[in-house]
Amino acid sequence: MSYHPIVEYTSPSSWAMVEDKISPFAKDTLAKLIRFMEDEIMPAIKVAHAQLPTDPATRWKTVIPVVAELKGKARKLGLWNLFLSKTHYPEFGVPLTNLEYALMAEILGRGGQLASESVNCAAPDTGNMEVLARYGSPAQQKKWLVPLLNGETRSAFSMTERFVASSDATNIRTTIRQEGNEIVINGHKWYISGAGDPRCAIHLVLGKSDPNNSDKYRQQSIVIVPPNTPGVKVIRAMQVFGYDDAPEGHCEVIYGEYYSRPLGPGRIHHCMRSIGVAQYALDLMIQRVTDPAKKTFGKYLYEHGTVVADIAKSRAEIESARLLVLSAALQRLSLIYDTQIDKAKAKGALKEIGIAKFVVPTMACQIIDRAIQAYGAEGVSQDTPLAKMYAQLRTLRIADVHIQQIGQRELKRAPALTQRTAEIKRKERELEQRLGIKASL
Amino acid sequence: MSYHPIVEYTSPSSWAMVEDKISPFAKDTLAKLIRFMEDEIMPAIKVAHAQLPTDPATRWKTVIPVVAELKGKARKLGLWNLFLSKTHYPEFGVPLTNLEYALMAEILGRGGQLASESVNCAAPDTGNMEVLARYGSPAQQKKWLVPLLNGETRSAFSMTERFVASSDATNIRTTIRQEGNEIVINGHKWYISGAGDPRCAIHLVLGKSDPNNSDKYRQQSIVIVPPNTPGVKVIRAMQVFGYDDAPEGHCEVIYGEYYSRPLGPGRIHHCMRSIGVAQYALDLMIQRVTDPAKKTFGKYLYEHGTVVADIAKSRAEIESARLLVLSAALQRLSLIYDTQIDKAKAKGALKEIGIAKFVVPTMACQIIDRAIQAYGAEGVSQDTPLAKMYAQLRTLRIADVHIQQIGQRELKRAPALTQRTAEIKRKERELEQRLGIKASL
Amino acid sequence: MSYHPIVEYTSPSSWAMVEDKISPFAKDTLAKLIRFMEDEIMPAIKVAHAQLPTDPATRWKTVIPVVAELKGKARKLGLWNLFLSKTHYPEFGVPLTNLEYALMAEILGRGGQLASESVNCAAPDTGNMEVLARYGSPAQQKKWLVPLLNGETRSAFSMTERFVASSDATNIRTTIRQEGNEIVINGHKWYISGAGDPRCAIHLVLGKSDPNNSDKYRQQSIVIVPPNTPGVKVIRAMQVFGYDDAPEGHCEVIYGEYYSRPLGPGRIHHCMRSIGVAQYALDLMIQRVTDPAKKTFGKYLYEHGTVVADIAKSRAEIESARLLVLSAALQRLSLIYDTQIDKAKAKGALKEIGIAKFVVPTMACQIIDRAIQAYGAEGVSQDTPLAKMYAQLRTLRIADVHIQQIGQRELKRAPALTQRTAEIKRKERELEQRLGIKASL
Amino acid sequence: MSYHPIVEYTSPSSWAMVEDKISPFAKDTLAKLIRFMEDEIMPAIKVAHAQLPTDPATRWKTVIPVVAELKGKARKLGLWNLFLSKTHYPEFGVPLTNLEYALMAEILGRGGQLASESVNCAAPDTGNMEVLARYGSPAQQKKWLVPLLNGETRSAFSMTERFVASSDATNIRTTIRQEGNEIVINGHKWYISGAGDPRCAIHLVLGKSDPNNSDKYRQQSIVIVPPNTPGVKVIRAMQVFGYDDAPEGHCEVIYGEYYSRPLGPGRIHHCMRSIGVAQYALDLMIQRVTDPAKKTFGKYLYEHGTVVADIAKSRAEIESARLLVLSAALQRLSLIYDTQIDKAKAKGALKEIGIAKFVVPTMACQIIDRAIQAYGAEGVSQDTPLAKMYAQLRTLRIADVHIQQIGQRELKRAPALTQRTAEIKRKERELEQRLGIKASL
Repeated sequence: MSYHPIVEYTSPSSWAMVEDKISPFAKDTLAKLIRFMEDEIMPAIKVAHAQLPTDPATRWKTVIPVVAELKGKARKLGLWNLFLSKTHYPEFGVPLTNLEYALMAEILGRGGQLASESVNCAAPDTGNMEVLARYGSPAQQKKWLVPLLNGETRSAFSMTERFVASSDATNIRTTIRQEGNEIVINGHKWYISGAGDPRCAIHLVLGKSDPNNSDKYRQQSIVIVPPNTPGVKVIRAMQVFGYDDAPEGHCEVIYGEYYSRPLGPGRIHHCMRSIGVAQYALDLMIQRVTDPAKKTFGKYLYEHGTVVADIAKSRAEIESARLLVLSAALQRLSLIYDTQIDKAKAKGALKEIGIAKFVVPTMACQIIDRAIQAYGAEGVSQDTPLAKMYAQLRTLRIADVHIQQIGQRELKRAPALTQRTAEIKRKERELEQRLGIKASL
Repeated sequence: MSYHPIVEYTSPSSWAMVEDKISPFAKDTLAKLIRFMEDEIMPAIKVAHAQLPTDPATRWKTVIPVVAELKGKARKLGLWNLFLSKTHYPEFGVPLTNLEYALMAEILGRGGQLASESVNCAAPDTGNMEVLARYGSPAQQKKWLVPLLNGETRSAFSMTERFVASSDATNIRTTIRQEGNEIVINGHKWYISGAGDPRCAIHLVLGKSDPNNSDKYRQQSIVIVPPNTPGVKVIRAMQVFGYDDAPEGHCEVIYGEYYSRPLGPGRIHHCMRSIGVAQYALDLMIQRVTDPAKKTFGKYLYEHGTVVADIAKSRAEIESARLLVLSAALQRLSLIYDTQIDKAKAKGALKEIGIAKFVVPTMACQIIDRAIQAYGAEGVSQDTPLAKMYAQLRTLRIADVHIQQIGQRELKRAPALTQRTAEIKRKERELEQRLGIKASL
Repeated sequence: MSYHPIVEYTSPSSWAMVEDKISPFAKDTLAKLIRFMEDEIMPAIKVAHAQLPTDPATRWKTVIPVVAELKGKARKLGLWNLFLSKTHYPEFGVPLTNLEYALMAEILGRGGQLASESVNCAAPDTGNMEVLARYGSPAQQKKWLVPLLNGETRSAFSMTERFVASSDATNIRTTIRQEGNEIVINGHKWYISGAGDPRCAIHLVLGKSDPNNSDKYRQQSIVIVPPNTPGVKVIRAMQVFGYDDAPEGHCEVIYGEYYSRPLGPGRIHHCMRSIGVAQYALDLMIQRVTDPAKKTFGKYLYEHGTVVADIAKSRAEIESARLLVLSAALQRLSLIYDTQIDKAKAKGALKEIGIAKFVVPTMACQIIDRAIQAYGAEGVSQDTPLAKMYAQLRTLRIADVHIQQIGQRELKRAPALTQRTAEIKRKERELEQRLGIKASL
Repeated sequence: MSYHPIVEYTSPSSWAMVEDKISPFAKDTLAKLIRFMEDEIMPAIKVAHAQLPTDPATRWKTVIPVVAELKGKARKLGLWNLFLSKTHYPEFGVPLTNLEYALMAEILGRGGQLASESVNCAAPDTGNMEVLARYGSPAQQKKWLVPLLNGETRSAFSMTERFVASSDATNIRTTIRQEGNEIVINGHKWYISGAGDPRCAIHLVLGKSDPNNSDKYRQQSIVIVPPNTPGVKVIRAMQVFGYDDAPEGHCEVIYGEYYSRPLGPGRIHHCMRSIGVAQYALDLMIQRVTDPAKKTFGKYLYEHGTVVADIAKSRAEIESARLLVLSAALQRLSLIYDTQIDKAKAKGALKEIGIAKFVVPTMACQIIDRAIQAYGAEGVSQDTPLAKMYAQLRTLRIADVHIQQIGQRELKRAPALTQRTAEIKRKERELEQRLGIKASL
């Protein structure tokens, strides 16, 4: 194992597990990213906040200057579109694997939305770019994808619906109908992240285009909708706890209109970013409990109660979660779009990703909660990033559908296990007969 | 057991435990309060929110009209100053015991700050009124207490300090010095609840007046400071998970000035209000999981995963916590200020209160968290009260000092237990000798 | 509140909640029981263990001498059949309420099966005596009930079946058929507590007597079966974490035979005994962590890690659980057999009992587990009662059916809650119209 | 990734992480071991139990015939001393790394002590063989090590002391004194695993040989003591829950005697065995909840309550723990005895091992507990391996010292973190100055 600055942000043993799977180019890029985080991104967070007006009239019309500056610098350094793998997108991608980007995503997680946007790796743009790169026509790619790849525009992904439980896609009420050369859309969505940004140039909208298809999961399509299309109304910004997450925001949007369409999903790296958030919360906690100014009753905070045990548990949970996600990333490969790959392997990896999706947000919420506890009132205030971290991670914990899927998939092992047990029982009876012993009832 | 509407908001068994300890007047008042909550307070919550401007320039200068209207109605109905027991404050109080008010506080908790203020039972006014009623001179009472009792003014309690861990009162840096006829105060505080309200007429400020006293817990005093005193600067409103809790707010305040003084603490009923919040969250959760519009994959939400078990656990936790607080309230009596009462009893009750203080916020946070989970994205938005409830309860969980105190107090039982065990051992040996058996090693 | 020794074993606040509901006779009996526990029962536990042979040949044929001696003393002191309330069983009972016995059951729990048997309050005899007292014919009562009431015989309750999930009574496979004057039983049961005792004079056996009844829960009857009936075979003693719990035991039994019948269930007080066990475990833990001989690295055990917090949490959990069970006991009254009582109240109380049944074993297991942790290797050995306590409480945790029932019962509140919310919404709209404000979306 | 039967016992993603670090020889040995487990070891478990007498007189004098038979077969197959790495013990070891053996240890864990002994990899022999191989003189090795390597004798490691908290080695009271050519030992130990076995040929006893050494952790030595030495008295077998774990046992032993000495510790692989136990418990749970004979109320067990979620969580916890231990094993290398290795790396790995030591037993206990729950009463009986598994894993959870060590070690990161934060603050101020913005307070 050779030294790399990632070890200071993660752990020697997780690095030992993956080091030989990381290319020299990726190692170099990762080191550059860490330096850029320390030198440019982290020092800019409060400034970016100050550059965003609180006045509701201008708040949603602002492009934050320091972010624009950071984007220019990042691009020059080659820290750009790191999420888009050349293997899957030869025309647009960078020579990094999913595993390699996973390590970078953890680092980016520490800087929140600002960090991801600075290197043009912010959701929902990442998923949308993947969809456009895979399914877009050359004309669509030129018009919508290229400006996104250049970081000139932003985008929204429009799925969640108000009034129904849209986590079950069959409940989707938004309709998509072909009428002559046009596509007519009607729907009422909310929590549309990115729809508040003044640079938002495109919504990818999910709706039912084929409601009579006998396969309930093939009734849906995705269509491209520019936000200035007549009939598109952004009603209001939804809050997450008390945060509006301007300028991107999470908006309530009504659609009553037209456009041409691509299909398909595209997402992730949330998990590694979340691990970065958790590790950062732990780092902040360690600093706080060892701060001489915060002694009470003559003792450091870490000398009180369960603090040391909480830190140890946090360390263990982060380490475990990191290895879980890395092993899923390693296995994932080209898995989602390449239909020719080994199906069994793909399903195995999907399972690991599913596990990560319910383990990681729960873990991260818990660790941030412990850090908040260590900071007292300051922990829930705007003076530390902890409360906002918590609010964001808590929304990721919503999707409990994963835990049920994992459980159901485990149950499918039952026939093989029952078979194995029957085989052992048979041999047990043979042994009993040979030895003349009746051991089992 | 006879019927009372409180049973619909709590449980038959907790009512069975206390019914015979509740006076007919209190039963009647409690029923009236429930009706007032249903008819007036709960329907006014969103209106009050709408009447509060979002513009930072006017937001902190507004008295919400519908709240003023509710206060008028409540006072006419005799639903006023319910927290102030005549037994302890014959001149100002109402004929209700702590136990009786505890039941009302649970109901009030469902309506948040609005409900408590409507019946003039909102913190920090309640504690401040108790301090003024007990320690104030007649002139001070006339000037500051009477307007508070009438609901004409509001107040702030100024304890927490920025830059030090002020949960240990010996760390307090704010100084209070007598200079001739004046008292000079210097300090930098934050999280001063109530200091943002335009009606705030008085800050009670804790500081060190006798820093050389050999008893470290007798170095502090409390002084009255009107917020328009020269040198008092309200710097900014602190946030709690993105909420500013206007108009009361939690402010950062710098003091550099003068005034005359009363002494003493003043507190509680938080616990019962928090139980009301938790019960309300459970009620909301039950409604959501049985809502036919929220079915997914053909099943009600309550038919999925762990929902039913979560509801059962929530029910058990609320029930346990309610009994815990009620038993503490029953025992508390005049406990805090009456020095002549049985000291042992007082200490026992303090212990129960301490237990409640760490059990209740943790319990309530957990139940609200489960309800948020049932509501999905809507649960963290401004469209349900859940996220704000969570933010407020989470701040109550900060004070972990209680868990250590309870643990330390339990340890004091060690000598009695050791003595009892030794006695049993002695009799064991006698029995062994009598029977000629060697049973213990 | 006046002093009573129960306070030393429980808490001042739980005593404050119930003291005025306890008769002078019950207070006196409770004090006498505490003294008897300290002077006679606790010192005899190890001796009783030593008097029970380890040799399998004689282990199941032994009546432990010191237990017989304790029973004689207890009966003389009037500490006898305390579970059987005169209100419900005027002919056989003692003048104690369920609530009063609940307090005694907690004390008895500290001494395990030995303590309960010493005062003739041991399961499954208690439930069986209730069944016989209520449903037995005078001849049956004379033959089977009187010797049990005198503590001369013991009994078994035979419900759980091997090979099926008999927690759902409709799965019961044991058949009960009338043939002329005789009743023919066929069945294979296990975990039949009490069936191993040499004094066991009677099994109450549950089976299907009316398998075609359209009400699936009215197909079952209970019949009296003396263990020496031809066809009754006690096959083996089942273990619980390695313990055989001789001499009573938990046996596997095959029935192929005849007899006459009573009907009905009968049980409880497990919960208060379990709380006694948990309190005892906490007491042991406190002694251990304050023991100077167990210092490590120069510090008491309680100065390490999470010990103080664990003790505080244990204290809070016991206190909550105790209040929960006491409030259920208070409400329960004559509830199970008196068909004329208020049905709604009965159902309410059943709910509290259901809550207690899943809360208490989980709580007690957790507290014992913490105590085991404090004792290290000794905690899992035969030198403390902790491991055996854990094994016994763990089996009580098995019946998770309660958590589902409680959850389902909570869901029944949905219509009333929905109605209440609709009413508030209606008034909200009225208020909005009156004030000309649109506050809700 | 190529197929290997280990995947059926673990997971595709953990195999993907390590496959390229496993030699062809190790892959082959691992496959052979899995086959041997399925064909020979698992079917022999109940027979071995039946061949062990319950009579106390002969129970501790028995060599179980079927174990002897299994050892002969295993040795012929080359499944022998797999724990002893040739890299560290060129003279005695096998060509397997720690990581490779870790995978095998997980498989062995499913078969309990029987499986480990069958391939001569049972504790405490493994640690004792390492000590003798490293520190023994050629004569000592010939006399004590060779018979152990051949599986002809067994051994005990004698550390834990009665009456003191010996987890702090400075509390050790056993004395070791040189007297002429002899070494005099005095001490009272218990929980001496292996001391009950009739084949036990050697105790390695830890005591204080240099009590005045100023370095408190250099006062101890280890001496070789054959159990037939005059003065060595095995007093009794300690139980774990109700199990005596015969024939090896966990004994209380008094030493009052003489002998010559080696020094040093030696241990591990517990963690992977424990993971095997947890995985096996999960496998058993899956079989139970899908068993049609165990339906209740018309539904499979897995359709009730939280079962599916519990299975999903168990899967996630096992997967995380496995990756954690494998990454520690990979890093560990020759770490414990090779003083020339990179110290920093060694410390890093020690940290991972420490994490695993508190994570794994807690995780495994929890998963076994869930499986017990699924099995109901049968889960705590002798008819499934679950209760015994729980008892054994629970003893591993005792050593909480690890959680404190990990926490303390994390705290050592504080200076670096504080430095990094100060650096970011400095750059933040530079940026503020450059842009003329005051963003931070």
